[in-house]
Amino acid sequence: MTEDSHEHDEVSALLWHALEGQGVTAAEGFRASGVACGLKPSGDADLALVAGDRPCTAAGVFTTNQFKAAPVLLNQARVACGRAQAVVINSGNANACTGEQGRRDAEEMGAIAARELGIAEQLVLVASTGVIGRPLPMEALRAGIPAARAALSPDGGAAAARAIMTTDTRPKELALEMEIEGRTVRVGAMAKGAAMIGPCLATMICVITTDADIGARELDLALRWAVDRSFNCITVDGDMSTNDTVLALASGASGAKVRQEGDRRKFERALDFITARLARAMVADGEGATKTIQVRVSGVTEYEQARRIAMAVANSPLVKTAIYGADPNWGRILAAAGAAGVEFDPGKVELLLAGIPVVGAGAMLPFDEARAHAALQQKEVVIDLDLRAGPQSATVWTCDLTEEYVRVNAHYTT
Amino acid sequence: MTEDSHEHDEVSALLWHALEGQGVTAAEGFRASGVACGLKPSGDADLALVAGDRPCTAAGVFTTNQFKAAPVLLNQARVACGRAQAVVINSGNANACTGEQGRRDAEEMGAIAARELGIAEQLVLVASTGVIGRPLPMEALRAGIPAARAALSPDGGAAAARAIMTTDTRPKELALEMEIEGRTVRVGAMAKGAAMIGPCLATMICVITTDADIGARELDLALRWAVDRSFNCITVDGDMSTNDTVLALASGASGAKVRQEGDRRKFERALDFITARLARAMVADGEGATKTIQVRVSGVTEYEQARRIAMAVANSPLVKTAIYGADPNWGRILAAAGAAGVEFDPGKVELLLAGIPVVGAGAMLPFDEARAHAALQQKEVVIDLDLRAGPQSATVWTCDLTEEYVRVNAHYTT
Repeated sequence: MTEDSHEHDEVSALLWHALEGQGVTAAEGFRASGVACGLKPSGDADLALVAGDRPCTAAGVFTTNQFKAAPVLLNQARVACGRAQAVVINSGNANACTGEQGRRDAEEMGAIAARELGIAEQLVLVASTGVIGRPLPMEALRAGIPAARAALSPDGGAAAARAIMTTDTRPKELALEMEIEGRTVRVGAMAKGAAMIGPCLATMICVITTDADIGARELDLALRWAVDRSFNCITVDGDMSTNDTVLALASGASGAKVRQEGDRRKFERALDFITARLARAMVADGEGATKTIQVRVSGVTEYEQARRIAMAVANSPLVKTAIYGADPNWGRILAAAGAAGVEFDPGKVELLLAGIPVVGAGAMLPFDEARAHAALQQKEVVIDLDLRAGPQSATVWTCDLTEEYVRVNAHYTT
Repeated sequence: MTEDSHEHDEVSALLWHALEGQGVTAAEGFRASGVACGLKPSGDADLALVAGDRPCTAAGVFTTNQFKAAPVLLNQARVACGRAQAVVINSGNANACTGEQGRRDAEEMGAIAARELGIAEQLVLVASTGVIGRPLPMEALRAGIPAARAALSPDGGAAAARAIMTTDTRPKELALEMEIEGRTVRVGAMAKGAAMIGPCLATMICVITTDADIGARELDLALRWAVDRSFNCITVDGDMSTNDTVLALASGASGAKVRQEGDRRKFERALDFITARLARAMVADGEGATKTIQVRVSGVTEYEQARRIAMAVANSPLVKTAIYGADPNWGRILAAAGAAGVEFDPGKVELLLAGIPVVGAGAMLPFDEARAHAALQQKEVVIDLDLRAGPQSATVWTCDLTEEYVRVNAHYTT
């Protein structure tokens, strides 16, 4: 499937129902906890543990940055065999650009969690988020991980979601329930990230758990598809972290086998729904943001071209500042789209800004600028660009660029 | 030649000397003028004319944006035959996204200039910069172009440089003199642009004149090489205008033939020197900028990879805000470099920030943060990233990202 799925949210919503206030422990067979072990100067919770009751099938998607943090490299190796049972995550320190010591520290984090849970080291995944280039304070983790294990609870999802926050202003979690093979299947998730805009490069981390019985290969495919259309379709400033990590664990405890094409589709859609919602929550939580911007590019031959154009518009500081100022400056949008490196016929282009047609056949349409200015003052602005050349479309979410973004990111002192 | 030439500025400077206070009319055989014809509400000069005494060899490099303004399309067709004699340029209106009417207006601008100068229409090039999507006020141009022709003067370079300004705070011109075949050759230029960051997408326009006797093909090659290493190596916000235009006209009036390899090299270096200086002047004039940032990436196998990494660093809002705040946040620089889509070994990387070694072998070096903070308060900051994997390097210039940039670009109302 290559189409832009988010327009089908309403349809998809008929296939499952949301579990209010639940997250990474909604699915059968998972416990979680969040504790404070002293990594954050504020004393806030900074260590999360998610543990399955038994080994799970597992999949992961990671940053493609050349500078991969030590835990990312560790997870890539471990997730390759398709099995995992626990994830230990610290906030406050990214364990990135920390060399050989960082590698040993990530391994030790996993080893402590494995020993505490009485499982094999290979079954533990590790994630870190926070300051780059500083060694992990291992003494804090040596005391903290046993405390996190002791605090594990089937109701611990919310505590875990809080413990992984860095520059986030609120925790992000979501869960849903659906029928597969006549059985109830749950998928739950937690995520953190104010979309790579934190003072020290905030990381995006997401952990998804499910009690579906799904093979490692199918889980991997579903996860990649969902991530590609969610976390890979948001941008605040175009920057990409050294630590970005999305993990999925499937316990199989529901007994519902995800094997048939229809069930696989349904499961994929559910993952997509969850990751898209969490991705949008990250954008809305972007530092300094006053508005979210949805950029939809349609009428394109290839999905990747559509996304490339949408990303170019979403990353344009001129577009983002115009939306901040509620300025219907359609010329900036066309210019950003035209510079994306994708060939198209500029004479066919149609553009709607906050629902108002402003460009048709590549030229300005008469429109009421006062009305457009008012429409752009909404909290969510939609930019809808139709190239009228093909069947594909892509949607990207971003936020506006404000003085507050500059202030937050400039006046941080290491 | 593919290497990064700017480190050789000192060497190159021995090959010619600058002509203080001169610009596009420094070379033999060119006159210019700048007049006000009423396109700018301020009443400032808004129409420039540059005219050769006879037909010149000509070359041009234009925006690759899919939305090309009408004058860009006209010039592309005319410059293809390698000859031109005059350039007429208006500011205040970009004649972009103006459809069929825009095409006719650009042609008429050229036709009026041709009639006034008594030359063929095919020999006139046209450029426009300013607001997008509004029809050119042709009445103003019908009166203005004859006035500009009447004002033509061998001393008119400065007036022309002023007439092409939009959001620029100062005119940008430069000229130099060198010996070729024992004769004195002059190259002069004017440019405008606050590097694509104007409220309505400020365009970059540059006109270069020379009295060298050089073939159209050689001029084209030299111009492309120079543009690639100057205007294509600056960025303020990653946006690309619909109107970007660089034109070169060679009158041959010096009688110095640029034929031999050594002379061609010398001429290329001179063009490169001029365009690089003008490009840096644009960055320094970037709206809201308090500092210029030079990003040098070395130790790379291919020049294009080096430039790609340098551009990724230069376009990173996190890097630009950190430099604004004089924050030695090297993690942001590594993360931006690592996300450029170029593979390299992160364990070898060395980074100097304002001359201070902060990363060696991919990990943080101990450095005095107070000293680094002080060093980053200079008006020009150098970021020097060495991947230690090959012989190529690239240099890109940008400016910092400030609250003032956001203010200027958000609170403009169309």
